[in-house]
Formats: sequence, C-alpha cells, structure tokens
Amino acid sequence: MSPTLRVAVIGAGRMGADHIQRLHHRISGAEVAAVVDIDEARANAAIAGIEGAVALTDAQAALDSPDVDALLIATPGFLHHDILLKALERDIPILCEKPLTPDAASSWEIVQAEAKLGRKRIQVGFMRRYDAEYAQLRALVAGGELGELLMLHHQHRNPDTPAGFTNEMLINDSVVHEFDAIRFFTNEEITSVQVRLGKATKNAPAGQHDPQHVLIETESGVLADVEIYVNALFGYEVATQASFETGIVSIGNDSGPYVRTAGKWGGNVTPGFEERFGAAYDTEIQAWVDAAAKGELGGPSAWDGYATAACCEAGVEAQRTGQKVAVKLNAKPSLYS
Amino acid sequence: MSPTLRVAVIGAGRMGADHIQRLHHRISGAEVAAVVDIDEARANAAIAGIEGAVALTDAQAALDSPDVDALLIATPGFLHHDILLKALERDIPILCEKPLTPDAASSWEIVQAEAKLGRKRIQVGFMRRYDAEYAQLRALVAGGELGELLMLHHQHRNPDTPAGFTNEMLINDSVVHEFDAIRFFTNEEITSVQVRLGKATKNAPAGQHDPQHVLIETESGVLADVEIYVNALFGYEVATQASFETGIVSIGNDSGPYVRTAGKWGGNVTPGFEERFGAAYDTEIQAWVDAAAKGELGGPSAWDGYATAACCEAGVEAQRTGQKVAVKLNAKPSLYS
Amino acid sequence: MSPTLRVAVIGAGRMGADHIQRLHHRISGAEVAAVVDIDEARANAAIAGIEGAVALTDAQAALDSPDVDALLIATPGFLHHDILLKALERDIPILCEKPLTPDAASSWEIVQAEAKLGRKRIQVGFMRRYDAEYAQLRALVAGGELGELLMLHHQHRNPDTPAGFTNEMLINDSVVHEFDAIRFFTNEEITSVQVRLGKATKNAPAGQHDPQHVLIETESGVLADVEIYVNALFGYEVATQASFETGIVSIGNDSGPYVRTAGKWGGNVTPGFEERFGAAYDTEIQAWVDAAAKGELGGPSAWDGYATAACCEAGVEAQRTGQKVAVKLNAKPSLYS
Amino acid sequence: MSPTLRVAVIGAGRMGADHIQRLHHRISGAEVAAVVDIDEARANAAIAGIEGAVALTDAQAALDSPDVDALLIATPGFLHHDILLKALERDIPILCEKPLTPDAASSWEIVQAEAKLGRKRIQVGFMRRYDAEYAQLRALVAGGELGELLMLHHQHRNPDTPAGFTNEMLINDSVVHEFDAIRFFTNEEITSVQVRLGKATKNAPAGQHDPQHVLIETESGVLADVEIYVNALFGYEVATQASFETGIVSIGNDSGPYVRTAGKWGGNVTPGFEERFGAAYDTEIQAWVDAAAKGELGGPSAWDGYATAACCEAGVEAQRTGQKVAVKLNAKPSLYS
Repeated sequence: MSPTLRVAVIGAGRMGADHIQRLHHRISGAEVAAVVDIDEARANAAIAGIEGAVALTDAQAALDSPDVDALLIATPGFLHHDILLKALERDIPILCEKPLTPDAASSWEIVQAEAKLGRKRIQVGFMRRYDAEYAQLRALVAGGELGELLMLHHQHRNPDTPAGFTNEMLINDSVVHEFDAIRFFTNEEITSVQVRLGKATKNAPAGQHDPQHVLIETESGVLADVEIYVNALFGYEVATQASFETGIVSIGNDSGPYVRTAGKWGGNVTPGFEERFGAAYDTEIQAWVDAAAKGELGGPSAWDGYATAACCEAGVEAQRTGQKVAVKLNAKPSLYS
Repeated sequence: MSPTLRVAVIGAGRMGADHIQRLHHRISGAEVAAVVDIDEARANAAIAGIEGAVALTDAQAALDSPDVDALLIATPGFLHHDILLKALERDIPILCEKPLTPDAASSWEIVQAEAKLGRKRIQVGFMRRYDAEYAQLRALVAGGELGELLMLHHQHRNPDTPAGFTNEMLINDSVVHEFDAIRFFTNEEITSVQVRLGKATKNAPAGQHDPQHVLIETESGVLADVEIYVNALFGYEVATQASFETGIVSIGNDSGPYVRTAGKWGGNVTPGFEERFGAAYDTEIQAWVDAAAKGELGGPSAWDGYATAACCEAGVEAQRTGQKVAVKLNAKPSLYS
Repeated sequence: MSPTLRVAVIGAGRMGADHIQRLHHRISGAEVAAVVDIDEARANAAIAGIEGAVALTDAQAALDSPDVDALLIATPGFLHHDILLKALERDIPILCEKPLTPDAASSWEIVQAEAKLGRKRIQVGFMRRYDAEYAQLRALVAGGELGELLMLHHQHRNPDTPAGFTNEMLINDSVVHEFDAIRFFTNEEITSVQVRLGKATKNAPAGQHDPQHVLIETESGVLADVEIYVNALFGYEVATQASFETGIVSIGNDSGPYVRTAGKWGGNVTPGFEERFGAAYDTEIQAWVDAAAKGELGGPSAWDGYATAACCEAGVEAQRTGQKVAVKLNAKPSLYS
Repeated sequence: MSPTLRVAVIGAGRMGADHIQRLHHRISGAEVAAVVDIDEARANAAIAGIEGAVALTDAQAALDSPDVDALLIATPGFLHHDILLKALERDIPILCEKPLTPDAASSWEIVQAEAKLGRKRIQVGFMRRYDAEYAQLRALVAGGELGELLMLHHQHRNPDTPAGFTNEMLINDSVVHEFDAIRFFTNEEITSVQVRLGKATKNAPAGQHDPQHVLIETESGVLADVEIYVNALFGYEVATQASFETGIVSIGNDSGPYVRTAGKWGGNVTPGFEERFGAAYDTEIQAWVDAAAKGELGGPSAWDGYATAACCEAGVEAQRTGQKVAVKLNAKPSLYS
C-alpha cells in the first residue's frame, strides 16, 4: 500500500471546509491529519467523522507535528505570508489558496524565499487551469492550429456578493482569476490594465460600482477585456471568447439537460463556482497530492501568485484613476523558468 | 413592366386570409383579383383595402372571370376535388392547399385528369419543401457526402388542437406533412405505416389518443418514425434527426435570442406554424407565382398529393388496427417522372 | 389594383444590382422604373429582363422623369450629397444606402435641407434594424423586463475585405453598423469613441491594422465595445451580447442544420452579409415601399445618418490617436424627435 | 484515519485495468489489494506501481485472502455466475460489471442466492445512473413538474465495434444500457421489445445488421425507442429525448469548446464511452466504496441485472423474429422492493 499524504488544512471556513471534505471523501492518497482554525469550535466541527484528524488553533502546531506531510492554506489572504514563510522553512509541499498574498511586495518576499530554498514547494489555487475547457483553449493557443491568438473577451458574472465585498475586491477577488487565465492562455505576462466605469446596476451594495469593464494587454499585444459583473442575479457565468487568426473559440457555454416547456427552451444556469468548477477543484487537489507524493510540485507557482498580485495592484489603481496603468514585475528567478 | 398574375383565392378562412395578405403585401408579380367564400361577409372582409379585388360566393364565377389568371385553393379539403377538376378544364395554374383531396381514390382522379391534360397545372401546398433546412437536408441525402441515409426520426409537436380535431386528423392533418417530408428527403415512396399507442396525455380532448408513435418504411428500407404529439402545450416544434452512414443531421433546432435570467438559459419556443414556417409560405407562394407566370409549374405535384393521401389512408388503418399496413400506389403517370 | 411605386435605382454596382433584383422579384407594390449608372453597359445589364425599366447615365434624368415616384441610392457614399439635395427638391421618398454622406458636415447639410422641407423624405439603409433579433433586443431594452441595459459587447467579423479597403474603412464601413445598432438598442446618442490596437493578423492587406477593439459610451453611460475583425477568414459573424441588471441576452448565434460527422459536431458559418441579412434587406425595402406609398416614411432617418457620421469621424480620430474622442452633435431638429 | 476498503479486482482486461487505475489514483478510501487474471503476465502488469497489491490467477485465492474486503468483477460475463455465488458465500461487497450474467435463468439464480443471504451484496455496473444528466432526467420524471412521462427516444451510437462483436451483442452489450436507463427513468419494468431492421450501413462487419430500431414498452405504457447504431463512424453519442405532458427534455447533447473556423461552427464529438462516462465511472466506484465501507450497498442491484437480462433475451428473439416479444419476469423478492 502506498504511503498516504497527511495534510494539515489551515482555515476551516467555506473554502477550507470544502477542501477538508474533498481530501477526506474524494481524493486518493491523502488524508486530513489536522485542521487549524483560530475558532476552535469550527476546527472541531471540521474534523467531525474524520478518524485520526486533530483540531488545532495554531498553524505552528501543525507545522511542528511529525504527522503532517503537507499544508493546504485556506485562511484569508492577509494571513498567508507568515504561514508560507514558516512552511517553506519546514520544506513541505504547500497548496495556497489564492491570493498568494494580498500585495505584490509581500508576494515577492515569498518568491524570493522559495527561490532561495531552491525548489518549488508552493502551488497557488488557480484551479481554473484544471478545468478541461481552460486547458483545451490553452492547448489551442500553444498548438497554433488556428494561427496566432489576437484577442480575448472574458465574462465573469456572479449572482451576488457576500457581505463586506468591496469595490477593490471586484479586482482582487474576481478579476484576479481572469488575470491568471489570460496569463495561462497566452503564456505571457500582462503589461497594462485599464478600467472603464459606466452605467451601474442598482442591485449592487453601496460602495461597489458594478459592472466594470477591464482592459488588459499582454507582452505580445494580445488585447483582452473582462466584463466583471458580480451582482448579476441570474446565476454564475465564467466564459471566454478567443479570436485567432483563422477562427474563434468560446468556452464556458451553458450545458446540461435541455428542456422545452411553457414556451421556453433552455436549461439551468450554473448557480455558483462550486457547481461550475467543483470538478476542477477535485482535479487540482488530486494533482497536487500526486505531485507532492513524488516531491515534484507543478501547477501555478508562487511566481504566478506574485505576477497576479502585481496585476491586481495595477487594476485597483486603474479602477481609481481611469487611466491605463502599467504592470511592473521584477525579473523572474530562474526557479520559475 | 411585367404582367401581374391575377389570382383568385378560394376560401377566406384562416389559411385563405393569410394567403390573401401574403399575395397583396409581400409577393411580387401577383395581385388578388378575387376572393371566393360561401360566407359573403367573410369574402368582403378579406378584400378590404385591396383595390381591384372582387368578393364572390361561387368558385365558378372566379373561373369564368377573364380577370383571373390563376387559382389558390384554401377551402376545406372535401371541397377541393370539384374545384380542381373545373380549374383543370380552364387550364390555369393552381396552388391547392394540402390535402389534394381527402382520400386516395379522389386524388387519383385528379392525377388522371391532369395527366390527360398533359401538363402540370397543380401544385400542392406542402410548404416545408420551401424551408431552407428541409431543402438542405434533402440536398445532403442527394449529394451523398454523408453516405446513404439510413434512418429518420421526426418530432411533430403542437401546443394544442382546434375544436373538432379528431384522432384521425393526427394522421391526416399533421403526420401528412411528415409523410411528404420523408418522401421529399428520400426521393422514394413510402411502403408501409404502423402506429403505436401508449401512455397518453391528460391534456388531449376526448377521442384523441395523444401522442402516437408512427413507424414508416420507404422503398429502399429507410426506417422513419414520427412522434406526433398535438397537445404538447409547451409550443410548436417540428424537427428531424437523420442518421447517415457517416454522420447525423438535425434540423428544426431552436434559435433566436439567447437569454440568461433567473437561473435559466435559453430562448422562446416557436409558438406556432406561422412563426416556424411563415418564411417558407412566402417562398412557396413567390415560387408558384414566378413559375405560373412562365407556365412552368414545379413544386409538390398532384402525384405528391395522391401519394400522401394513400399514406394517410394506411396510417388511419394502422392507427385503428395496430398492425403494419402496406401503402399501395397506382403506377405513376409519365407526366410526374 | 393598388398603384405601384416606380423606383429609380441610382448605382448598379453590387448593392444596387441586389436591390434591383429584390425590387423586381420579391417586393410587392414596387417596380424598377429606371436604373442610373455612369457605366451605361452596367445600367443596361441591370435592367435586363425587367420590362418597362430604362437605363440612364445621369441621376438628374431619373429625377426629371414623370415615371419615377421614388429613389433608391446605391452609389458610393461620396456621391450621395448632391443626389440627396436634388431629390429633396423633387420631394420624393428616398432610400439612401449608408453612409448618408461620408462626413458629419455634409450629412448635417442634408439634415438641414430635409428639416427645412419639413417632412421626412430620407430613409438610411441601416438594415439591421429590420432583422428580427435586433428588433427583439431593442424591445427587451425598451420593455425593461430585464432591468436597465448596462453593457454591450459586439463582434463584427468578415471573412475578408475587398480590394482598396482601407484602415479607416474598418470604422466607416463596418463599425458604422455597430454605431447605429448601439444607438438603436439604447435609443441614445453615442458620446465617445476610443480604439485599441493590439496584436494584428498577418492575413490583413497592407495598411489595415486588424482586428481593432472599439470602446464606446452612450449618454446614460452604457459601455459598449466592438471587436472589428475584417479578415477573420472563418466566415461572417455579427453578434451582440447585452448585459442587463437581471440577465444577459445574446443575438447573432449560429443556426441551421446541425451535423455530427468525422469527430465534429456543428454546422456551417454564414459566409457573408447577404446570407446573414438578406431577409432583413427584403423587410427593409418592403417597409420602405409600403411607407412611401402612404407618404409616411419611417425607419432610420437622415438624423441617424448624420449622428453615425459624427461617430465615424470620432472613431477615425480615435483610431489615429489612441485617445478617447468625444462625439459632438448639433442640436436635433424637431422633425426628428 | 479511516479503514481502507481492500479490493480484489477480478479480470485485468480493458475495463478491469481501468478500474484498477481508478481505485489506485482517484478513489478515496479504497486500495487495490489483489488483481486476478488467468493471464498471469496481465495480472502482474496491472499491479505495477501499486504497492501492496498481489497478482493472482485464481479468483478463489482472492476470496480466501484475509487481505480482501470487497470484490470488483470485470471478467467476461460468462464467468460472472460462479464467482458471484462464491463471493456471496464469503458475504462481501461486490461490484459486478454488466451483465450480471449472460442470461435470465442464471441471473435469477444469483438473485435467489442473494435473497437467501438476506442482504444486498451485489451492485451491477450500470454506471449511467451516476451520470449527472441521467439522474436529473430521472428526478424530473419522479418530481412530476412536467407532468407524466409519455415517450422516450434514445440514440446509442458508437464509432465502431471491436472484433467479434456479433449481431446479438447490439442488444446484449449496447441496448442493455438503454434497457436499464429506461427502467431507471421510469422506475418501471419493461414489458415488451420489438426490433425493426431496415436499410443497413455498408460499414458494419459481416453478420451485423446495423443500425436497428428497437421498440420498447413499460408497465404504464411509456413508449420508448432506441436507435442502436454501432458503426456510426462519426464518434460516440448516447442521448435521450423524453416527452412529458407539459414539456420535452433532452440529455446527452454535445458540449465543450465551441469553435468557428473554415466556414464551420461546432466542437468535437466525444470519441468514446470513457470520455463520455469517465466521470460517471468515478462517481459509481466512489459511491460503491463509500457504501461498502458502511455495509449499505445501494445502486443497481442483482434484480436490475436479472431484469435487464430478461429484456436482452426478449430483444434477441425480437431481433430474430421481427415480432413484439413480451418480457416475462419472476416475482420480485422482497429484498429488492
């Protein structure tokens, strides 16, 4: 029997609890060894029914435990930096939910620490890369069957936003996925961001200007744009249309049972990201577990976390100023090339 | 200026009134010269606003008029036989709404009369042949790009039926279109019909067993089947899926604006045959007018009317007996080959 | 019999020839009385088979003819101004293919001349307004069932461009349709235009930067964007996705027979604008003929022609400068409100 | 840590090898303890890289092993009967790939043996029940939102067949899935089967009449039909259209990236059942492992295996005779109600 990867999950909120269930019920070769949450009751609730798992309130305790082989970080982003540095010291495989850290400067520190360690230990939770359609679009770009990629049109629509979701979070929490997706499709860095604000929905909470139109350029001049619309009510929709030299590709179309009744044809819109990307999360975590077991971490790296953090900073400035803002990146350490 | 085809329309009911408006407003090169209806008020109403048109109560008066160049027959089917014979005597172009006549024997008399005349003067109103998708499917069969056609699956669904719609009319009024479509796609005659009766909807009027499953064979052994379902409530749907040796073709899919709202994606189902086949009616009538002007009538012929009448007779017997019933046809006069 | 509208068609090139055939073969209540082209052979060819039509080489001759009731102008745009002024003097119904004139200043002269005349005599050939889906999207905006319209994403893709198609023509000949469509959907004027130039296809002729991304704002702040891509090779595609407060609407989706063969599912892309908008042209011309017969011209007006000319001027400047350029309009004469 | 279900896989052919990889790489809570194949080399190859697994050539050795908790049977169907009886004696959870056994009489012996044991130990590998769309269609039938289910139209198309695939296997290997699906959707037994043979493809191996049209009835009179077409070349397609009293539901539609290029719109057809139902296999096996761990086997039962075996017998007779053949079932033991 193969050795099982014993994972400590840091953070037992919505994403953390999801990952705990995933690791316990659907992922092969891994088990939940520990759950860390400052809310002890929440940590205890999260391990209910998971034989052998312990509930802790301090990440250091998990890092010190000889029963922990790997770390899955699902706390709020502002807590990532310190845990990441400690985990890099322990030199174990880490899956860090996005964002790597909330800003480019602190992300850069993580990149430098990992580069100094000299081996990739961090994978960032950009799970869309594990969605079959995203991978197929990237393969179409790389393969060249349709010529060069010229433009990308992204739509990112949520039914609504949780309490406390700020105007900056449209960029930092939502468009961040599109930044990574554009980098993933093109295999290029993003060079500038601009944000257009126009007519807004009355269904957004105070403080949010929703929707927004985000204009993005990449190194080779691919023009991308994102409609970010987070109080769209009708459901969840994440789609991309890509224009190539000899064709157009669309991903993220509706699917599922097709019904004709009461004068209408159609089906159900995906209600949220769990339904849309649940299988991608499973694939992501299984891939991370398999790679961690072999000591060969792949997937989105700390560099990807840093680069998207830089895009988000530029995006928030663009949102504030209305101007085109350049994205500036430090030189990429050789570990990531 | 080209001479205008002066058309007498016999019957000012729903179909007749539609055709009068069509001839007056949308068809080039024709005008409504006369409208005949035994209900004088209805005839008068039908010519309102059409300068130069006269209202008559007797078809013979229209046939006798020197101002009438052509006949469009839109009366109930049981009246067609006599008018057709008289119009053939007058030797003018005729568009006869389906059915040619209500039974194979009387249709055969029309075929013989026209064959004796020696020129095609009758076109039967199987307007689906003028729908672009129907023509494309026929072309795919004829062209052979997908190999031989092997099977046809037809769905014919109406939201509901008018008062007085009998169980036999499921065959005679609705499946008759599918009989002609199968003959049109395959360019073959139908050799047998069988009808399966199973679970029925509670939404059908008394006397109708709805839906029914009609099994059809053609000369070369193409197996077709039709779901005829005339109280389907949700809307109007007429579709065919064709299985070829190297591919599958579907026509009659939903289209139009695509909306995502309230958790659903989709669009509006076509409400009725006018919306689904309105353009085909326009094309049919324009083609008939153009051909009539040149004296070269094409389109579905009296033979097609006779052959489908024979299919309907077999279909009604099959409906009653549950058995496979052979379709028997007289030898085809050379006029139609 | 109703009187027939006797139309003189000015210009017997591609569009003119199409309209001549349309008027002769498919439009009810109109006939081609004259065709004017400086190329006499082309004019003669265009009237072949049209009884009663005369070929002329001078528009004035058509305007002077007592046998001409109405004018359809299908010459290159730079010739429109003079013919329009003369036709307004004659005070007859005019259908002028877009553009009204090539620039805002000369369009404004036409608007003023018509306003002085005091009745609408000019309809501009923005035929998309007669496409069923365009009308349905406008109705959805006006009706408010989906709340306020917030954003519009347009794609306008051609397989290729004719010889001599310049970079400015991407705006003046292609995006001009989108300018009008945005004005039609929103029932608002456009207030600014910006153009982004990024990675370009190698399949464009020298001098064209293709594709381009055009950013547009309307009076109420609706943000629109257009991917204009005129050497897209794969076929013709004109589509819009509209984001409302409670839903998303897409028009311009692919349709037609659906085939599965050789490992692929799908259908044929529309090859060109004739196939995509042929029915809209028929509807447009029939509506114009019907309105002209009653002396009640509706449809896109000279004001629409002027306003889109102003958008085009701003668009070409935006294309050159990369800056957001305001669209400035004179006050709208009361005739158009 | 939870105890792990130690599974012996009997048969290391295509399906067996797939399941071994699935259990090892993707299923949580289970491990491959043993692989049995009469071909020792194949058994050894199948356990390569799976620490702790043993290769055996005799199923009895696996059943005797104290390291085996459960059995997955993936041998050819004619070997199932004996292994099942022995495994029932050992009283461990069994997943038996379809068919339960090759004929109704031997299946009935299994049903009786399990009924005598008094607990459900056998799950049959009708994995479509674990496909999300199949489950959704069943829920629509059960929920009644669309009224009663009236008709089912199934299409089952394979690109080609493996060597040795006989005419009877169209029923026994392919339509058997549709028999189970119809029983699953309707929650009723099938009462009769009829088979229509018409025009056949030239692409089938000698001895196969392909396609065939299979007509099926259920207890309440639902009429189902299946186009079984196993040399359809274009790809794999398994779809159902269901007609209800107030609507129509289609499952199995094409999906995935949508490409417009070279005059075509569309995407890739699923090449085979692994791509179409791979996720359903994962869900099926995970559900079986989870249930086995709790001793609460659910899913398709030995009764389902027996009932479909009876349908297949009737289907093969119907294929031979062209007649409608009744399906006769013994009384259902209380264990299965």
